[in-house]
Amino acid sequence: MADSSISPIRWLDNQLILLDQRYLPDTNEELICTTLEQAAQAISDLVVRGAPAIGITAAYAVVLGYHQLQADPDYDLDQAMDLLARARPTAVNLAWAVGQQRELMQAVAADTGQALLANARAIHQQDLEDNRRMGELGADLIEPGSNVLTHCNAGALATAGFGTALGVIRSAWEQGRLQQVFASETRPWLQGLRLTAWELAQDDIAVSLIVEGAASSLLAQRGIRWVIVGADRVCANGDVVNKIGTANLAIMARHYGVSLMVVAPLSTIDLQMPDGNQVEIEQRSSAEILGQHYTDDARVSAWNPVFDVTPAQLVSALVTEKGVVLQPDKEKIADLFKAK
Amino acid sequence: MADSSISPIRWLDNQLILLDQRYLPDTNEELICTTLEQAAQAISDLVVRGAPAIGITAAYAVVLGYHQLQADPDYDLDQAMDLLARARPTAVNLAWAVGQQRELMQAVAADTGQALLANARAIHQQDLEDNRRMGELGADLIEPGSNVLTHCNAGALATAGFGTALGVIRSAWEQGRLQQVFASETRPWLQGLRLTAWELAQDDIAVSLIVEGAASSLLAQRGIRWVIVGADRVCANGDVVNKIGTANLAIMARHYGVSLMVVAPLSTIDLQMPDGNQVEIEQRSSAEILGQHYTDDARVSAWNPVFDVTPAQLVSALVTEKGVVLQPDKEKIADLFKAK
Repeated sequence: MADSSISPIRWLDNQLILLDQRYLPDTNEELICTTLEQAAQAISDLVVRGAPAIGITAAYAVVLGYHQLQADPDYDLDQAMDLLARARPTAVNLAWAVGQQRELMQAVAADTGQALLANARAIHQQDLEDNRRMGELGADLIEPGSNVLTHCNAGALATAGFGTALGVIRSAWEQGRLQQVFASETRPWLQGLRLTAWELAQDDIAVSLIVEGAASSLLAQRGIRWVIVGADRVCANGDVVNKIGTANLAIMARHYGVSLMVVAPLSTIDLQMPDGNQVEIEQRSSAEILGQHYTDDARVSAWNPVFDVTPAQLVSALVTEKGVVLQPDKEKIADLFKAK
Repeated sequence: MADSSISPIRWLDNQLILLDQRYLPDTNEELICTTLEQAAQAISDLVVRGAPAIGITAAYAVVLGYHQLQADPDYDLDQAMDLLARARPTAVNLAWAVGQQRELMQAVAADTGQALLANARAIHQQDLEDNRRMGELGADLIEPGSNVLTHCNAGALATAGFGTALGVIRSAWEQGRLQQVFASETRPWLQGLRLTAWELAQDDIAVSLIVEGAASSLLAQRGIRWVIVGADRVCANGDVVNKIGTANLAIMARHYGVSLMVVAPLSTIDLQMPDGNQVEIEQRSSAEILGQHYTDDARVSAWNPVFDVTPAQLVSALVTEKGVVLQPDKEKIADLFKAK
């Protein structure tokens, strides 16, 4: 099976080691976290991003926090975990992973530190296995000779190391189903240009970048069969919260009769969230768009939401580790969890 | 009437002086052209851009070429004009302006240089008047209290000095019809961020920037009534060739029930071009997208078309200096020219 050579998150000698994604592809640096707070800051600062990777990082961060508590009985781990869970608001995996560790801490009497670490490793390992499974299931949907477009980075860098959307693309490429992979550069952070292109090239998968404005022309002219994306949160009714620009692609894909595949593990599905309208959408600094321009000019501002909502009606297939849901809706998504 | 303080093209002492738009908004430099070839290069290099501005520049460039011929009888002005007309392929105003000057040269016996300059000045002045007229006509379509979105830069910088799409926005702002103006940053050259925001701020019109990926969220949530754009070429059937990303906005606007206004003078309408499928779309270097990344990596490429085609069916209103055409089609566009 195709694998990825990229490990964005490692645990070594009681330290959490993160590949610093802010400086890719130019420099390949790692950031070492020895405290929960450092890990929370790394999540806020986009050192690590992508819903599954944020969840894994948070699980290890709680282990760090537990060690801090062992060294200093006054350390307020409960409050620290609250802070960690709020490091970014939109991806559900963050609260999910912190919640798991919190429950474990309450349930386990002895060897709590070891149990927390074992659980973090299990989440990490499970994500890798789930990604591989989703890769196989998603690739099965793709007819040989297809061209595909992906958005942002839902790859090895956004997960334990294989990817959701890029996991499907890796599997499909390995199986010879793909003719050409296109990736949108994904403003303002350029995750497509900096991360997706870099990690596909690492695995010898050729990729062609476009600006997001070229998506209509690409879908109209370049034989795209699937737009393939990950998700930061899938709501109970199938609405998909993902990187800003995803809804654009969904609307254009529908216009041109191109299918939209969303690849996300069950840990990204939030059954408590009825639909996308109620999800808190993170707003980031206008400086991410304006850069060093207009810093003293109150007449120029920027509106910078980081995620958008794609209505379930525009999703052709939701690929999870428990199976593929075509035209997802509330009932079909509930069934996924029953099958578990 | 609202006016713009910006003059992107000036003729002074037999020199063509261009505001160098590559370095805005950081530095406000001018480039002086004393030969036709320098002006053609300035068009290729995007020192000056925007269909009307390219046409005006070309008209003055022919005057420079005529002076070169006077100084050197061996100078091949005919060939130089061919080169000039091909400096960029998509905007029709370039060939239109060179064609006008070529005809004039053949028709006029005496004082050819003076006639060419007078015609260039007339094209320049007419564009300014036409922009003001389109500004009034377009503003009439906008209900008071509206929010609008524009793309790229179809402003003073793209024309003689008032703008097509931004001319409408200037007029509507002056009349108090606009609550909030949004502009897409417009990758890869960031004309929205660098030029539109700069020129609106110069005229004290507040503007909020978005990345193109945020367009769906903006149209869904921020009360946008009109998407307002210029055009590089309008075909006989009403198809609109404009900056890459325009078709995206047109498809999304239709999806959300938002109206699309295209503002273009008759010099941008190409009756010889039946529809958008046959227009040559300029492809520019992949380095405009990849920057300094992946320069030695053959696995990473980029697809960089500069314009796209918006089908006439998605255009709510075409605003010209001769009047407004609602739901433009071949017959209505032909009628515009008869009314002339």
